[in-house]
Amino acid sequence: MGHPDLAAEAHSPGALSRMTIPDVILRLPDWVAAFMADQPQTCPGIEQRMEMAVALARKNVERGTGGPFGAVVFERDTGRWIGLGVNLVTRLNCSLFHAEMVALALTQARLGTFDLAAHGRYQLVSSCEPCAMCLGAIGWAGVCSVVCGARDEDARAVGFDEGDKPAGWPAALKRRGIDIVQDVLRDRAVEVLGLYAARGGPIYNPRRP
Amino acid sequence: MGHPDLAAEAHSPGALSRMTIPDVILRLPDWVAAFMADQPQTCPGIEQRMEMAVALARKNVERGTGGPFGAVVFERDTGRWIGLGVNLVTRLNCSLFHAEMVALALTQARLGTFDLAAHGRYQLVSSCEPCAMCLGAIGWAGVCSVVCGARDEDARAVGFDEGDKPAGWPAALKRRGIDIVQDVLRDRAVEVLGLYAARGGPIYNPRRP
Repeated sequence: MGHPDLAAEAHSPGALSRMTIPDVILRLPDWVAAFMADQPQTCPGIEQRMEMAVALARKNVERGTGGPFGAVVFERDTGRWIGLGVNLVTRLNCSLFHAEMVALALTQARLGTFDLAAHGRYQLVSSCEPCAMCLGAIGWAGVCSVVCGARDEDARAVGFDEGDKPAGWPAALKRRGIDIVQDVLRDRAVEVLGLYAARGGPIYNPRRP
Repeated sequence: MGHPDLAAEAHSPGALSRMTIPDVILRLPDWVAAFMADQPQTCPGIEQRMEMAVALARKNVERGTGGPFGAVVFERDTGRWIGLGVNLVTRLNCSLFHAEMVALALTQARLGTFDLAAHGRYQLVSSCEPCAMCLGAIGWAGVCSVVCGARDEDARAVGFDEGDKPAGWPAALKRRGIDIVQDVLRDRAVEVLGLYAARGGPIYNPRRP
């Protein structure tokens, strides 16, 4: 408790208004502009696509802007990237802002749709397997393909919690018409997790049970 | 495809920049200000808390600002409400913005933390059981209690998909130290689902498998 604005509100009956709930603004860190300018417009191969996701994760650690996770949304067939994300949980004070969530939300904003499937065939490439929340979000976003680098056990090995995912979740994605490819450049993705741990980066969702 | 801005970018090599990925702004509809002004500052009883969540869901349908779902975050012990949300998927073109996600993000923004548990004991009261994504998000947000109105089967009955939730998810929440109370004012919450269906509201996440 003890938040100053809340304390002030408590002493001002009737002061509660829409203004007291601030908007949430999802904005990428400034370094991302230069990062994007350095990328090719298209990444034909799956490893090239993962290189971009892992590079985002690494840069996010090096710049101190969040957790060791990056994700990119590509047009599946052309390899053109449309949106991207990094983990911004600590930076933006929002537990929703995992890299995959940021990439999906920004891609939808760019394309002006809440259902990417209505727009084309999109692939989410993530430096790590999705946690329980991101896995659920993948089902709603309208992507037809997911590519992962590190395994969820790699994330758990450095202290992150991945949540309670349904048993056999890759098969469940496939039943929904969403392809999944695992272990793409896994070693390179795991290196970034190790870098974060070595730097003492905060583990914002520690295993609590 | 055929999005005009993207088409223009395709003909301007090098034009891809941070500016081409717009920020995502999570903002409540304007009617919420008057709604909040009408609420008591605290709701001591669990049914009174659910009344607020269901009233939000109903108003969201009546105003045409989104799906038939509402959620409120309360200080668990005092019943003071801190943040709230309604489903904004279609309004904001973002598949992440379920009512629970909106309520959790806005509460965290208001309190300036990505972990509500570090701040106090908070309870999420939702007019419907969480989908797979929201269930995952509940694990990260730092709430210690969840209260639900309608069952997920009620949401499915009007056409919504709830995603692949782990078997025994209420017990899994409890293992994480998160209490769950189900079926609070379930009939009233189901009424709002029916109202939405009767008005022909869009089912933005239809069952695709």
